[in-house]
Amino acid sequence: METKINNPLLTISSSRLSDITGINPYQIRKDLSYFGEFGKRGIGYPVIELAAQLKEILKSNQTWNLVLVGAGNLGTAFLRYRGFARRGFIIKAVFDNDNRKIGQKIGNMRIRHIQEMEKYLKSKKIIMGIITVPARSAQEVADLMISAGIKSILNFAPINLKHPQEIMIQNIDIAIELERLVYYLS
Amino acid sequence: METKINNPLLTISSSRLSDITGINPYQIRKDLSYFGEFGKRGIGYPVIELAAQLKEILKSNQTWNLVLVGAGNLGTAFLRYRGFARRGFIIKAVFDNDNRKIGQKIGNMRIRHIQEMEKYLKSKKIIMGIITVPARSAQEVADLMISAGIKSILNFAPINLKHPQEIMIQNIDIAIELERLVYYLS
Repeated sequence: METKINNPLLTISSSRLSDITGINPYQIRKDLSYFGEFGKRGIGYPVIELAAQLKEILKSNQTWNLVLVGAGNLGTAFLRYRGFARRGFIIKAVFDNDNRKIGQKIGNMRIRHIQEMEKYLKSKKIIMGIITVPARSAQEVADLMISAGIKSILNFAPINLKHPQEIMIQNIDIAIELERLVYYLS
Repeated sequence: METKINNPLLTISSSRLSDITGINPYQIRKDLSYFGEFGKRGIGYPVIELAAQLKEILKSNQTWNLVLVGAGNLGTAFLRYRGFARRGFIIKAVFDNDNRKIGQKIGNMRIRHIQEMEKYLKSKKIIMGIITVPARSAQEVADLMISAGIKSILNFAPINLKHPQEIMIQNIDIAIELERLVYYLS
């Protein structure tokens, strides 16, 4: 039954992966080969094995707990978004410093005061956080997070945060993405 | 008055720019030199001129009109966010296909039916759009936008959109950014 491995439900070629992802097939083969020999030339990658391996490489075969600081419009949108949980990211708590918001609920999550964060993070051993506060408060929030044990931060505030080298910060500045589009419009 | 050019309010060094942006000073000098000779060695860049030149290069000395499709949580957050307007991006209209939402207001903007979009885009000559619909609807929305004259799209749906080569699409998949952080956590 040597031919069965060509069954499109069992194997996938780098060119088909390229169609789906928009990444060129050479890059896909090169990147995957970096992690080991998954595929066979002319046959492709075994789908189930490849998926399992990728999940392990990307550590997406586990769930990750997060906190979010900044219960404004963007923070609220993320709390209501079910796509994170589907990808294994669980927002466990939300913090803000606006007394009018503390105790209110977004979905079924109560907004907590930022002063409770350090104790919360340490007791729950949470190491990832999302910042959706205005630029002027973002550095202070990042400092609080880092001193309470957070190791990586997804930052939506349009500011370049100072941080120790061992802390990973990923910035998403949506206006910069729009500026990038405009730059290439010409 | 040769020394006056060293006044820190008048000039800025690449190392100070590096402190502010987190980009290394060599890269800053290299990138800026690509657009011409703005600075003077040992003195720095004249602040006002540099700012004006950068705005021109980045085309951020003008305003850009946009439409947004998908009046869900994320779309609503963007409509309420004042940071876009400050950077010259004006969301002029919002569209959705959910009849329960049509005619409702977000801030003072009425949600329009997606069927009105083509006519609206053509009459207003708008060429930029933001997609905040679920993945399953995103391709259809992108096709509608492109056929109505949109040239660049900021896409938040977690899907790789097919598009003609001359159309610019910038994807922001927030779960992927979280996955990137997790990957580097180890």
